[in-house]
Amino acid sequence: MVEAVAMRNSEFPSQICSVARSLEIVGEWWTLLLVREAFFGTRRFSDFEANLSIAKNVLSDRLAKLVEAGVMERKPVVGRGNPQDYTLTPMGRDLFPAIIALMQWGDRWIYGAERAPVRVLDHEGGAEIARMKVTTPEGKPLQPKDVVVVPGPGADEAVRRRFGKAEMRT
Amino acid sequence: MVEAVAMRNSEFPSQICSVARSLEIVGEWWTLLLVREAFFGTRRFSDFEANLSIAKNVLSDRLAKLVEAGVMERKPVVGRGNPQDYTLTPMGRDLFPAIIALMQWGDRWIYGAERAPVRVLDHEGGAEIARMKVTTPEGKPLQPKDVVVVPGPGADEAVRRRFGKAEMRT
Repeated sequence: MVEAVAMRNSEFPSQICSVARSLEIVGEWWTLLLVREAFFGTRRFSDFEANLSIAKNVLSDRLAKLVEAGVMERKPVVGRGNPQDYTLTPMGRDLFPAIIALMQWGDRWIYGAERAPVRVLDHEGGAEIARMKVTTPEGKPLQPKDVVVVPGPGADEAVRRRFGKAEMRT
Repeated sequence: MVEAVAMRNSEFPSQICSVARSLEIVGEWWTLLLVREAFFGTRRFSDFEANLSIAKNVLSDRLAKLVEAGVMERKPVVGRGNPQDYTLTPMGRDLFPAIIALMQWGDRWIYGAERAPVRVLDHEGGAEIARMKVTTPEGKPLQPKDVVVVPGPGADEAVRRRFGKAEMRT
């Protein structure tokens, strides 16, 4: 996987974009499923293996990649054969909004709300979590047509040229 | 890509999960970058090609896959050589929260906020959009530890067995 990432980097030297760089870490199909599993409470190698029906060597590679990227960490636990738990780091836990947004998109457009496989509830109140939305700081919902993209503090010349006046207009 | 999806499907017959199914459509690295481009206003084949430095045949395959999945649609436009625009369908535009969540994650954990390549602003008020968060219907922010996963209306026996009592506990 490290090779694949390196190849992708060299393919897109000018892609300084947080979506592109994020996808290098979590865009691989399996990777985000492992993060989903971790959110679902899976910690043991053998549980990831069973829940995802994934081959040991593939799982091992993917977990190592996530550990290397800082998304998950290994923690030794007591038991036979030096078992280790894999848990999300703060960086990994911060993927929560992205995972939920993707889950809600699938519920809506692939399964249909009335056939959603799982529901995510507020533990305290028991209500289903709200639909993820992009908003202003005051909470006003924004559609793609309501926003503009402008160069950020880390923009290079190409990004400045491109987004000096660009708008999201879909 | 259709073959790859089919292979993945048969690899995980029991993965009825909206994250897994969504990733079959948008999880491939290139795919989500094309959707990002469309949010940035790119419509022409030649502009996707230039902005992503992608080979024509690869781009053509990826766009066809997105059209087939219902995420984008082709629209003939006036001009030489029967040019076509590729625009997001309502299904595609609804990926807005997922794309923004991923972008914010990358801004935070990969570039660092002070080096974000682009900023997304509310067109009307000019303020930067809020950080995406998972909330209750009343807007109370929720962390992974604050939620429980329960079987949804489309749960099969395996999902019911697994999430009858499961919690997200990271």
